[in-house]
Amino acid sequence: MASIPTRTLGRGLSSSSSSSSSLLVSSQTASSAFKLSRPQFQPTPPPDDARTFSTTAPSSNLPSESNSFPPRKAITIDSINQFLRQADYAVRGRLAIRAEELRDRLEAGDTSLPFKKIINANIGNPQAMEQKPITFFRQVLSLVQYPELLNNEYTPRIFPSDAIQRASTLLKEIGSVGSYSQSQGVPYIRRSIANYINERDGFSSDPKDIYLAAGASSAVSYLLTTICQGPNTGVMIPVPQYPLYSATLTISNATPVPYELNEETQWGTDTKYIARVVKQSQIEGVKLKAMVVINPCNPTGSCLTRDEISDIITLAAKETFLIIADEVYQTNVYTGEFHSFKKILRELQRDYPGIYDHVELASLHSTSKGMVGECGQRGGYMELIGFDDDVLEQLYKLVSISLCPVVTGQVLTEVMVNPPKPGDESYPLYEQEYNTIYNNLRNRALRLFNAFQTMEGVSCQQPQGAMYLFPTISLPLNAIKEARRRNQEPDEFYCLQLLEETGVCVVPGSGFGQKDGTYHFRTTFLSPGDDYVQSIINFHNRFLEKFV
Amino acid sequence: MASIPTRTLGRGLSSSSSSSSSLLVSSQTASSAFKLSRPQFQPTPPPDDARTFSTTAPSSNLPSESNSFPPRKAITIDSINQFLRQADYAVRGRLAIRAEELRDRLEAGDTSLPFKKIINANIGNPQAMEQKPITFFRQVLSLVQYPELLNNEYTPRIFPSDAIQRASTLLKEIGSVGSYSQSQGVPYIRRSIANYINERDGFSSDPKDIYLAAGASSAVSYLLTTICQGPNTGVMIPVPQYPLYSATLTISNATPVPYELNEETQWGTDTKYIARVVKQSQIEGVKLKAMVVINPCNPTGSCLTRDEISDIITLAAKETFLIIADEVYQTNVYTGEFHSFKKILRELQRDYPGIYDHVELASLHSTSKGMVGECGQRGGYMELIGFDDDVLEQLYKLVSISLCPVVTGQVLTEVMVNPPKPGDESYPLYEQEYNTIYNNLRNRALRLFNAFQTMEGVSCQQPQGAMYLFPTISLPLNAIKEARRRNQEPDEFYCLQLLEETGVCVVPGSGFGQKDGTYHFRTTFLSPGDDYVQSIINFHNRFLEKFV
Repeated sequence: MASIPTRTLGRGLSSSSSSSSSLLVSSQTASSAFKLSRPQFQPTPPPDDARTFSTTAPSSNLPSESNSFPPRKAITIDSINQFLRQADYAVRGRLAIRAEELRDRLEAGDTSLPFKKIINANIGNPQAMEQKPITFFRQVLSLVQYPELLNNEYTPRIFPSDAIQRASTLLKEIGSVGSYSQSQGVPYIRRSIANYINERDGFSSDPKDIYLAAGASSAVSYLLTTICQGPNTGVMIPVPQYPLYSATLTISNATPVPYELNEETQWGTDTKYIARVVKQSQIEGVKLKAMVVINPCNPTGSCLTRDEISDIITLAAKETFLIIADEVYQTNVYTGEFHSFKKILRELQRDYPGIYDHVELASLHSTSKGMVGECGQRGGYMELIGFDDDVLEQLYKLVSISLCPVVTGQVLTEVMVNPPKPGDESYPLYEQEYNTIYNNLRNRALRLFNAFQTMEGVSCQQPQGAMYLFPTISLPLNAIKEARRRNQEPDEFYCLQLLEETGVCVVPGSGFGQKDGTYHFRTTFLSPGDDYVQSIINFHNRFLEKFV
Repeated sequence: MASIPTRTLGRGLSSSSSSSSSLLVSSQTASSAFKLSRPQFQPTPPPDDARTFSTTAPSSNLPSESNSFPPRKAITIDSINQFLRQADYAVRGRLAIRAEELRDRLEAGDTSLPFKKIINANIGNPQAMEQKPITFFRQVLSLVQYPELLNNEYTPRIFPSDAIQRASTLLKEIGSVGSYSQSQGVPYIRRSIANYINERDGFSSDPKDIYLAAGASSAVSYLLTTICQGPNTGVMIPVPQYPLYSATLTISNATPVPYELNEETQWGTDTKYIARVVKQSQIEGVKLKAMVVINPCNPTGSCLTRDEISDIITLAAKETFLIIADEVYQTNVYTGEFHSFKKILRELQRDYPGIYDHVELASLHSTSKGMVGECGQRGGYMELIGFDDDVLEQLYKLVSISLCPVVTGQVLTEVMVNPPKPGDESYPLYEQEYNTIYNNLRNRALRLFNAFQTMEGVSCQQPQGAMYLFPTISLPLNAIKEARRRNQEPDEFYCLQLLEETGVCVVPGSGFGQKDGTYHFRTTFLSPGDDYVQSIINFHNRFLEKFV
């Protein structure tokens, strides 16, 4: 457990005549390495005589003397955090908001729209797309929420014995899901996660390296808040990328350093090219601290090969940057195999002693994706490898300010990494549910991929993993002109038209980054049924006819 | 619903020879009002010929050529976010970490310690102190986690009809607790919260002003991230204060502007004094954007009078600052009455037309405190009054990057604000549980307060609200000298000795801010039993004997 520095805010605060404000002084003296431009604010002393306080004076006197209050706002668009203002987050952007407006109209009985429902293919939210949760997971969550059930005579007639057993074990370790846990997460649950990683990789994992989080988004926010120190901090992000990264970096006032994925090689990475990005960033004076790798990839749906991963780790060892491996789709693999960065790192450390020991890796996982799909439960974790202890101490402090990740999300993480095993009462149902979800995802991916194959001017890489396809669309020049006339990106225009005509909501490629002059959109393949696929095809044909 | 700007990151990213990086350009051109010092990073173009990519080259060649990798770390204590490094968070600081070490030793069978268990009086975590959750709340949570129960023949024998009914209603509105909700929270739940506020205040509340959050901490983080723009942003915080505020402001590189509470007037606020703090901050060049008020107060346990609140609102109207009203302890009131800032604001707006219309107020509530005490479930909300729409648009974007607050925490918030009513099947039990928890809290507060009355050199204000007492301790000069010798704050030394000798963990006053030369500690009064109170008394007497 990291220890927290003992310097405390407000220590020695002046009461009346002292000339220093400790609230500010303590910040200013904390680090000689970093220069603060904070103004030297001197606090006003409170009156010495408490009896002069006006707390009992009627406040009704005040307004009459103040008819001239200026009706200004304290918080205006020009005075707020301008880094936030600059940040973009397309997944829940204009398209999503328009989709909600249209849904409200449908629900209010509006029959003038050319569709009957909104299909939210803009966000990986499986249970909003009729995906059923895995029964064992929900049984355990139901039992830990209402521990009285464990002593109820009817419980064994409703819940299987292994769910009851698991809930009992977890409650014994946790106490109550209504208590704060350790900020890093319940120790027992961290041990379960370490066991999972051990079995997945064949290399041991240490529970002290595990940090539970409210979904991977929260872990990313903790990591980036810790490592970013102003605009000279560079973090490499893939293009296209999940916009959580660019948005969080922009809000942190750090510099996103893009590296393009190559669409022609199944959205692959080329380490020689990335090495040039690193060199270029050094020339530009950006201190490159980390590289984000999303594998399997959001939004492209591609999976990295073992060699690509090995090359990235080698470059990180050579050039000294943290690898942030977003591996939340690690079980969403439909072609080939998932290789964790942790496993490949441990292999390299084993095979080339001493060379890779200093590599820093953060690996993220989540209960929102995979066959779990429990987005609303906000479970997830990160494993931190190779971090300095004094850095971890600071990260722990940051995590502790938020007290703890939601405890039921931690419980869900435990059952995700430690599901029923062959021989357990719940195993047959678990296996059946898991396989059904997996097969549905794979089949829906292929169905949508095949549809894109038939569409003129659309090409798409084979679906390998994750929950998304990211096809290229060749837009007619007239469509591009019309988009510019409307002050929209061409792919945004396409996606808005798709939404208005079919109710299908996707995200334009411009929200993720794409090569100049190319246009894409990201769509999940979670939606059941064939209707929406056909309506995309029909829309596309109409669109081409209209603008050719 | 706010709409999100449509400018997207990565738009028009150059593929090979273009000379601009849209990732950076979009940040730089976004706001002419704010100057960015971000370097002009030019991305390296990827190779044009995909066949030259080395993705299939064996990586095993790389290590041999790189035996000279410098074994440096990318992320070091001197290169991380120095604002984070400067931040303090005493509630989970040195004392809490030492307490965990001692607990681990006890659990490992260490019998050499002078106590048998750790009493965590450092943190308001009621269910870790044997407080039982309210049955109706947990029944609803259990049912929404496992909707199959709603169709099970045994369910009516286990669950009361109103819990079943509520779970059905919520599931119909939510879909699945495993789906992402709207980023602002489930519309139905926001309507319930608005109804609660309406009944509480006698003034209407609008569901569009409600933002669900993962506990009030998360709401505070969203608010401060939105309004803080560098060191010229000042936010008034009380001294003593809950260190979430100072820590978050430090991490945001904003300037905390302290205003002292007056211990002699029951930790009251004096608006004339605060008006001088405001003037002084203007002289110092700090732009004061907000004032944090914690009512009932953490750590002091005091409640503001109606006049104090009215005076603060009048000052905010006159001087133009946002009021952040942390009202998470609104039901933890043992003496007098809770007055919400919202209610008093609406009264002033009604009684003095036009004068208070521009006042901006953020009111926070939580499921962690009150008689709910469900800290680990991470439920809460904020109501935002008087904010500009374009500011809300930015806040909404920030909230949407985290996708949504945990949905079960939202469900818990709904049942908290809409509990069983007289006549409902669950009402008698709910009423009994609620009153038992309330009476326990009040009795424990008084018991501890009475104990402090008997202790030499200790004085304490009457417990009015919240979950804490914040007594002053007069420390002997020899104890202060010994503390300095150990490089500890005197009150920290006292608290560490208390922990080592009794197992009782409290937080030193220096962690919250206190007047120069005064010493305090904050203790919860949640712990059951009298033993720990007696052991504090015994320790205190020994401590005085030792150092006098």
